[in-house]
Amino acid sequence: MSYIYSIFQEMGEALRIPASFVVLECIGTLAGAVSGCRLSAAKQFDLFGALIVGTATAVGGGTIRDLILGLTPFWMTNPIYLCCCLFGLVWVIVFRRYLVKQNNMWFIYDCIGLALFNAIGIEKTLGLGLPYWAAICMGCVTGAGGGVLRDVLMNEVPLIFRKEIYALACIAGGVVYVFCHSAGWRIEACALISSVVVIVIRMLAVKYKWEMPKMKAED
Amino acid sequence: MSYIYSIFQEMGEALRIPASFVVLECIGTLAGAVSGCRLSAAKQFDLFGALIVGTATAVGGGTIRDLILGLTPFWMTNPIYLCCCLFGLVWVIVFRRYLVKQNNMWFIYDCIGLALFNAIGIEKTLGLGLPYWAAICMGCVTGAGGGVLRDVLMNEVPLIFRKEIYALACIAGGVVYVFCHSAGWRIEACALISSVVVIVIRMLAVKYKWEMPKMKAED
Amino acid sequence: MSYIYSIFQEMGEALRIPASFVVLECIGTLAGAVSGCRLSAAKQFDLFGALIVGTATAVGGGTIRDLILGLTPFWMTNPIYLCCCLFGLVWVIVFRRYLVKQNNMWFIYDCIGLALFNAIGIEKTLGLGLPYWAAICMGCVTGAGGGVLRDVLMNEVPLIFRKEIYALACIAGGVVYVFCHSAGWRIEACALISSVVVIVIRMLAVKYKWEMPKMKAED
Repeated sequence: MSYIYSIFQEMGEALRIPASFVVLECIGTLAGAVSGCRLSAAKQFDLFGALIVGTATAVGGGTIRDLILGLTPFWMTNPIYLCCCLFGLVWVIVFRRYLVKQNNMWFIYDCIGLALFNAIGIEKTLGLGLPYWAAICMGCVTGAGGGVLRDVLMNEVPLIFRKEIYALACIAGGVVYVFCHSAGWRIEACALISSVVVIVIRMLAVKYKWEMPKMKAED
Repeated sequence: MSYIYSIFQEMGEALRIPASFVVLECIGTLAGAVSGCRLSAAKQFDLFGALIVGTATAVGGGTIRDLILGLTPFWMTNPIYLCCCLFGLVWVIVFRRYLVKQNNMWFIYDCIGLALFNAIGIEKTLGLGLPYWAAICMGCVTGAGGGVLRDVLMNEVPLIFRKEIYALACIAGGVVYVFCHSAGWRIEACALISSVVVIVIRMLAVKYKWEMPKMKAED
Repeated sequence: MSYIYSIFQEMGEALRIPASFVVLECIGTLAGAVSGCRLSAAKQFDLFGALIVGTATAVGGGTIRDLILGLTPFWMTNPIYLCCCLFGLVWVIVFRRYLVKQNNMWFIYDCIGLALFNAIGIEKTLGLGLPYWAAICMGCVTGAGGGVLRDVLMNEVPLIFRKEIYALACIAGGVVYVFCHSAGWRIEACALISSVVVIVIRMLAVKYKWEMPKMKAED
């Protein structure tokens, strides 16, 4: 166990972020992959299709962000992210009958992922010297892009365009992040505070069934 | 009013294009955003979904172009484009009952946007030293890509694959542009002439219901 | 005829690959374009829509790969690929009534394209100094990405997520490629061996109707 943690620590040092961040990032990636694989199973995709959709859900947002920022997609330089996706597929197959009981756990992991991906997207964008509003956009793309890509690949209307408070939580967390950042706080503090905001909003939104107002059709 | 124009002038100088181009570019962006938001409203998306689809329609083509050309997407370096998209969403909400009456106006704005986006795409590509045929392709991607992205995000078959003369107008305008360019004309002159070609073809196509021949299915 | 071959030879020298590779690459591109155009015809797209879908099928995988690798998309620097796509469209229109009879020929061309695109994707990725597992992924993206893009543009669930053994052949060929590569073999030998593996698996899969196991839905 301590050996595994030392791997995360080493990775964290290479990426100049705390080891706990890497652990949380893997949990978030896993949650994304499980979400994609479960929906693929509902559509009777084969193993390969499920793996691709799970991977797209997990790393798609960060990939779109990296392409826009002109960086090599993050999962190309470290195999751990694709391993998490593969592990997510195995999990969905092995625990098929128990996944519904695990719903709360996966919801929490998904929130953690959303919050952390958002913070990573903002941090990466600010690190390139881009303005605050662009960083908030990129945080949002990192957090919510994977789900949109998943729905496009599954030939569905993207869920977050119609139902869930997802991107709004990212934007609120992003505003808090840049506020802390402009006050000169350390990266870890900015990420922590903004993550709490994202997670709290997302959880309250699901608990109290908050929804954005719908657009009204023309007469 | 003159203060607002001086902003466009300043932007134009920074981008080394005439201020009137910047005004027209904003009108085109607005027209794209309104088109995306209106279709989102017809599908009962929420406010956020409409904003994303509107933004994708307005800046999607130019984003695909910039990614292919290896440039930072144009809307990342200047907030005015996303402001136009936000303004488009507000417009659709406020003038919901009057949008049908504004159809002609929006059609004209859309034509202006198509023509200008096409010229910008061509100019940017030629500026990188790429060949003429690649520039015409990129003009077409800039002009028509946003609409395709909009339809993919809304889970519809892209309209321009089935109905409208849209890309053909871009290609015709593109051929005229590179012809003028190879004759040594100034950028403004090339853009003006090619824009007139695009707008005239698009308007005639809608007025006389021109359509491309359909593919015939195999027996 | 020998004049045409000398063109391929010149291109091959410029790209530092044998002329026969360029010929095979064109055949693969043509097969992709024909596949996209035929499916477009079945959906009654117009000429332009068919050309775009055909082109996306043929060059889409390589474009996604090049964007991820941070390279200029391969078809931007040489007009031959888009010419193949245009030729594919003309072929589908002219031989409309005979396409069903040509099914076996197109299937073989498609297999050749898949195998070669896979090898090119791997070679390009290794050439950038990226690790073996990333190269296998990029081979798979090059080979299978075009078909996914085609299905997304046509508003269909991607076929390869549900039915065909396509990506698995790429992965098997990719493993063989990197094995040969790590043994110090020449590029041509690696590409040849891995291509044979891809083609044989794909053909056996179609002949014996091999399918990946489907995901089981939750209760």
